Amino acid sequence: MDFKSLAVQVLEQNRRALARALTLIENEDDGAIEILDYLFPNTGLALRIGITGPPGAGKSTLTNQLIRFFRQRNQTVGIIAIDPTSPFTGGAILGDRVRMNENALDPGVFIRSMATRGSLGGLVRQAQEAADLMDAGGLQVIIFETVGVGQIEIDIMEAADTIVVLAVPDAGDMIQSMKAGLMEIGDLFVVNKADLDGSGRMKADLEYALHLRESKPAWAPQVFLCESRKGIGIDRVVENIFMHIEHLQQTGEWLRKRERRFRQRVRKLVETKLNREFWNNGRKELLDRHLQNSGGHISPYQIADQLLSDSRFND
Amino acid sequence: MDFKSLAVQVLEQNRRALARALTLIENEDDGAIEILDYLFPNTGLALRIGITGPPGAGKSTLTNQLIRFFRQRNQTVGIIAIDPTSPFTGGAILGDRVRMNENALDPGVFIRSMATRGSLGGLVRQAQEAADLMDAGGLQVIIFETVGVGQIEIDIMEAADTIVVLAVPDAGDMIQSMKAGLMEIGDLFVVNKADLDGSGRMKADLEYALHLRESKPAWAPQVFLCESRKGIGIDRVVENIFMHIEHLQQTGEWLRKRERRFRQRVRKLVETKLNREFWNNGRKELLDRHLQNSGGHISPYQIADQLLSDSRFND
Repeated sequence: MDFKSLAVQVLEQNRRALARALTLIENEDDGAIEILDYLFPNTGLALRIGITGPPGAGKSTLTNQLIRFFRQRNQTVGIIAIDPTSPFTGGAILGDRVRMNENALDPGVFIRSMATRGSLGGLVRQAQEAADLMDAGGLQVIIFETVGVGQIEIDIMEAADTIVVLAVPDAGDMIQSMKAGLMEIGDLFVVNKADLDGSGRMKADLEYALHLRESKPAWAPQVFLCESRKGIGIDRVVENIFMHIEHLQQTGEWLRKRERRFRQRVRKLVETKLNREFWNNGRKELLDRHLQNSGGHISPYQIADQLLSDSRFND
Repeated sequence: MDFKSLAVQVLEQNRRALARALTLIENEDDGAIEILDYLFPNTGLALRIGITGPPGAGKSTLTNQLIRFFRQRNQTVGIIAIDPTSPFTGGAILGDRVRMNENALDPGVFIRSMATRGSLGGLVRQAQEAADLMDAGGLQVIIFETVGVGQIEIDIMEAADTIVVLAVPDAGDMIQSMKAGLMEIGDLFVVNKADLDGSGRMKADLEYALHLRESKPAWAPQVFLCESRKGIGIDRVVENIFMHIEHLQQTGEWLRKRERRFRQRVRKLVETKLNREFWNNGRKELLDRHLQNSGGHISPYQIADQLLSDSRFND
């Protein structure tokens, strides 16, 4: 396949080309890097929003409301729905099919689901790369939506400019222990299903937890009550997202975030390549031989040192 | 500090020395590697049990019952209680203090809590290293107990020979989405609080999910109903743990697990050292300069290639 011409088609906002390029990323095809490299100068313009929270918090309902909002302003929207749970139960995100159908006829909306195929670290990288492709493909707003509240979801959120954390009144015990990481990354918080008992209490709890945050950032995250199914409270959430973006731009944090991501990307690429180069057949065999002969008396520290000792860099 | 003499004291089952060595590991002190390297030939004997499941599933109650069981057989027990939630809410594990007090006078029980200080990947490695130290220090059974059900907890469980996954009848929606990874790693499953409504249903659900597992391993995990607070059902759980260990030994999986961990450790050590060596001041400055000058037109792929191009290995 001619990857460069596929990249050009992505740039020309050909949606079918975009879909094909995304598949290359998911398959970790070498062509994906060629395409990403080519498109890089055309990325960085899209607004990237992350939406996370426990299952059942209404993430896809909120996402749908955001789609509607941005479409009314004639902005194109790309959705990256990420399910890091294992492929063994299947990676389908509930409500995803419904959403697909709802927006099937609108060329201004592009939806892609991603699930785990190999490593979870790979999924984090792929989500970022997918966003770059959509960005280069002219989608103006990109929404990352994750299932669950684990570390992977938190890592994926690093690719977002603004992170919306959802909570539900009755999440109880479980969210309590998961909350720590989410409390730290959220730029705004939404207590969805505000009609349920305990929503006011949950809002107060979140506000108190935010108050306890040790690092007091320049931006003070707020907690909003919402009923996203009925569209109640969405306006204020969107307004706050824009306020946050404005804050990022005014304080220079917008550029710093992009720079951090760029650095991180370079570091990851270097790490992957160094490892791939290091573990040639010779070194793999050396490790195998060590394992067979040592009888458990040579420590991994010594073997690592031996393997490294004759492979210094040319500085 | 003389690290070798500290290592010798650990080997002589000096508990204070063990505690000090564990602190070196947590602080990522270079001395820790010296100690681990010295003690390595004396590791690998201890039985390593992992206990995981959502908060409130009764992990610490089950752990306490296991401590009691092993102490009655005069076996020494080390507990590594791991809380990967961020340091911002504090890393204290509920019930840990109670347990400390309960076992404070028994020199055959050694408890250590570990929380996140830096990276989560670091925590996984540290938990394994802590187990090695306890193992060399003569503790015969080592129990890893984690809070939560995320990827980090699953990674930590790789250090265990036998993994017990706990569930509670009323965990509902949330566990559903988290279950996938846990379903795959569990060697046995315990539905705790069996007196609650829905425990039979939960058992049936788990058994059905196990039945659906694509890979049918030689070992068929079973689901047990328990009331660990009252000690009901513990005997059968412990019996099944021993059956699993026997199975591992008979099939050679016991050795293969240790070999996999060894390989993994070597790979991690190599990776860390390669990266540390690569990112010398010269290369860091080069990346900084690139970021300042490129104006966003050079992709991370090109910069990574440029950085790597003049640093091949001597093969």
